[in-house]
Amino acid sequence: MKEYESLERRFREAATVRSIAAMLGWDQETFLPGKGAVWRGEQLAWLAGRQHRLVTGEEIGAALEVCAGYFPEEGREATNVRGWARDFRMASRIPVEYVERMARLTSEATHVWAGARKAADFSMYRPILEQLVGMAREKADLLGWEGCRYDALLDEYEPGSTAAAVEELFARLAPEIAAMVGPAVAAAAGDGGWEPSGHFPVAGQQAFNREVAEAIGFDFEAGRIDASNHPFCTGLGPGDTRLTTRYDESNFLSSLYGVLHEAGHGMYEQGLDGGQWGLPVGEACSLGIHESQSRLWENHIGGSDQFWEHWLPRAAHYFPQLSGCSPHAVAAAARRVSPGFIRVDADEVTYDLHVILRFEIERGLVGGSLAVADVPEAWNARFRELTGLAVPDDARGCLQDVHWSFGGFGYFPTYTMGNLHASQLMAAARGAVPGLDGEIAAGNYSALRGWLREQVHMHGRRWSPEELMRRATGEEPGVAAHLAHLRTRYLR
Amino acid sequence: MKEYESLERRFREAATVRSIAAMLGWDQETFLPGKGAVWRGEQLAWLAGRQHRLVTGEEIGAALEVCAGYFPEEGREATNVRGWARDFRMASRIPVEYVERMARLTSEATHVWAGARKAADFSMYRPILEQLVGMAREKADLLGWEGCRYDALLDEYEPGSTAAAVEELFARLAPEIAAMVGPAVAAAAGDGGWEPSGHFPVAGQQAFNREVAEAIGFDFEAGRIDASNHPFCTGLGPGDTRLTTRYDESNFLSSLYGVLHEAGHGMYEQGLDGGQWGLPVGEACSLGIHESQSRLWENHIGGSDQFWEHWLPRAAHYFPQLSGCSPHAVAAAARRVSPGFIRVDADEVTYDLHVILRFEIERGLVGGSLAVADVPEAWNARFRELTGLAVPDDARGCLQDVHWSFGGFGYFPTYTMGNLHASQLMAAARGAVPGLDGEIAAGNYSALRGWLREQVHMHGRRWSPEELMRRATGEEPGVAAHLAHLRTRYLR
Repeated sequence: MKEYESLERRFREAATVRSIAAMLGWDQETFLPGKGAVWRGEQLAWLAGRQHRLVTGEEIGAALEVCAGYFPEEGREATNVRGWARDFRMASRIPVEYVERMARLTSEATHVWAGARKAADFSMYRPILEQLVGMAREKADLLGWEGCRYDALLDEYEPGSTAAAVEELFARLAPEIAAMVGPAVAAAAGDGGWEPSGHFPVAGQQAFNREVAEAIGFDFEAGRIDASNHPFCTGLGPGDTRLTTRYDESNFLSSLYGVLHEAGHGMYEQGLDGGQWGLPVGEACSLGIHESQSRLWENHIGGSDQFWEHWLPRAAHYFPQLSGCSPHAVAAAARRVSPGFIRVDADEVTYDLHVILRFEIERGLVGGSLAVADVPEAWNARFRELTGLAVPDDARGCLQDVHWSFGGFGYFPTYTMGNLHASQLMAAARGAVPGLDGEIAAGNYSALRGWLREQVHMHGRRWSPEELMRRATGEEPGVAAHLAHLRTRYLR
Repeated sequence: MKEYESLERRFREAATVRSIAAMLGWDQETFLPGKGAVWRGEQLAWLAGRQHRLVTGEEIGAALEVCAGYFPEEGREATNVRGWARDFRMASRIPVEYVERMARLTSEATHVWAGARKAADFSMYRPILEQLVGMAREKADLLGWEGCRYDALLDEYEPGSTAAAVEELFARLAPEIAAMVGPAVAAAAGDGGWEPSGHFPVAGQQAFNREVAEAIGFDFEAGRIDASNHPFCTGLGPGDTRLTTRYDESNFLSSLYGVLHEAGHGMYEQGLDGGQWGLPVGEACSLGIHESQSRLWENHIGGSDQFWEHWLPRAAHYFPQLSGCSPHAVAAAARRVSPGFIRVDADEVTYDLHVILRFEIERGLVGGSLAVADVPEAWNARFRELTGLAVPDDARGCLQDVHWSFGGFGYFPTYTMGNLHASQLMAAARGAVPGLDGEIAAGNYSALRGWLREQVHMHGRRWSPEELMRRATGEEPGVAAHLAHLRTRYLR
């Protein structure tokens, strides 16, 4: 059908442009020299403008109308048409001028933010954060909203989700987690408290991480691992998925869990339909589903005793000081519950408290009930309520995350959704894959990976996140599986 | 003037697109995973098409007519207008369909070539080389030519140059060099024949190379060094110039001279007018002039005894096995004359024989007097005439260079022009900078670098290569200075 073919050509071109921007973004975080930052901003603004023009042409609307309802429901074409219609609707509400202005602002903001965080000085960041909040509100109003402004932003990352739904989820989660922290810390005290010590050379960490990532199924012919300040994963095209991690020579666990997390994302990207790469049926379902893949490998697999039963000998091969350890001692160190200031270093139990805090803060900013100038005070007060800890400086408080600097208001809740989905998927996988724990202890991950590929990866955006979860697990997405997992693991 | 401003906007956008393609090209040579190659070809084809459309719009011709003769001769604006007129004239003769087809073909050809070279099997490369030659002939005919087809291709890299002029230059050069090889080999026999031995760890080479590159003036805040199979330098924007080198742990000189060469290119890029980056006045004059900068630092500076007087202690700091050496012994090893098969490993005396061979072969291919199937035989026969050596296989013969695979027919002669210009510029610099050899021996390069910046870098495309050389050196460009340099250095 010629309208479908012309849409496919058009959106494939847009995917090409997006992938070029992703390549430049990857380089910006890994290798770009300091004096190249301004020009990089120009390049990204140009690409953002081109991409936006491609997905907002007038002829798209007409072609979409012809295609609507034409193809069998849930098939590849119908999925693409539905996805294009959503993307076209949203993109058409944003003028290209906004897109280019935003690309320049975020390119500058990530630099300003890095400087402010280094100096632990919120006042350096405040003016540009005000602009970022203004742009986020402007975008929400352009996109349109019913319940509240925040809904419009959240929906971009997690289609169909609303602030009210997130609030309800968090209201069920927060008290359960809060009640669990004390007992979990106490239970962990019985572990013996082993910690990594000695020197862990970067070269050894790289070799060990690569072995692990290959074993769980990340394809290095179609991807790579580099270093960056903040670990991330980015899909640059079919056959090109890149992870980063960061190295601490006093603790090999830091880079390893970065790799496990990002390789979870990476295997989702590598499991998508490469022939449809960048088209809706070849794209990830949502950020929450994406995060479920990273958290599943990082926490459920990597945090288990079984994982270390297989991997400790290999780790000790690279780091001889581990020779005397037990698998349980290393696993216990990896998952130790200990409330702290930094989200990305948080344990599995307290992690979601960090997310809840950010959701509340950014909802206030976007809704207008919280002024940018009051962020540090609001952050620190609420952090104390949630964890009992007093934030020592803004670098360890409201300046720690990059998200607002790239315009990612509405992004944080998807982290918690990822945790919830990961637990629910893992419970379902245990039911579907007999002897899964034994497989993990033997270092054999293919059955689990195959199940994830079939249930999650290969469907792209065929269903909504909720529908995907229902089909994969047979249950409504919720908090039960995650709370059960935390209780089993931490309240023995 | 509004026509000038609209041209500037337009060509600045084209420069942005070119710089994005350069970024993707850099990544292709350094980090791209194997399975990402096909998609990378799509990305590059898209960028090539966009860039071509930008510089060939109808409205450009009209604006150029208004601007012609309007600005003071030799000023920034006049240089840009002249450069745009040339670029527009050439680009307008090439259809966008050709540009995109060529981008896809070269992306594939570089892969096919790498495989064929590895297997030392010309038959693997032959079919795609036939296509490449066909495309080169097609392009020459599209561009138009008077003397011969090759002129059209050469002019792209070296404006104003012709095959006849190159032939005349080579006719003067070849017998002089041929007569020099034997005596130079004999003279080198008196050097004692020291060679690097022992282990030179990559980390030590990286640290030493960086010290040297910084000292000669490469700005690492605006650039970086990575590893690739073939050393290269690429300008990705103002403030972002990247070099690569390759490491041999049995010989630290290989990566060091790669860095000296590429840093010469890099300092030219960094010395251009950053505010006019990508516009003619902020672009390199020609490939021959570019190569003069790399060869000057690699050979004239790096190959001197004075260079090693300063650097040997630092090298011995990283590689203790060098402690007993004399600066002269290391310099003699670095510049030792010894005819061999590989152009990029060739010494300063025999290097141009490799270029002459390639010029003859590709002239034959483009002109139609040599069939692709006959390339290995023609190559090996002529190589024996020039050097007396029998090529053992095509990997060390006609498969050794990447140039044809990226469509670079007409590129090779600029290497020899670079050698000639380097010697002529160096002779002029000696006259202009008193005590230059003493400065080099003291590790002080700022006077030389300043002279190059003033005489060469900052002018961009203001003058033709010949005019630039006349102004910088006070003489017509020719072979005399280079032959004098070789005689002084190699026939003591």
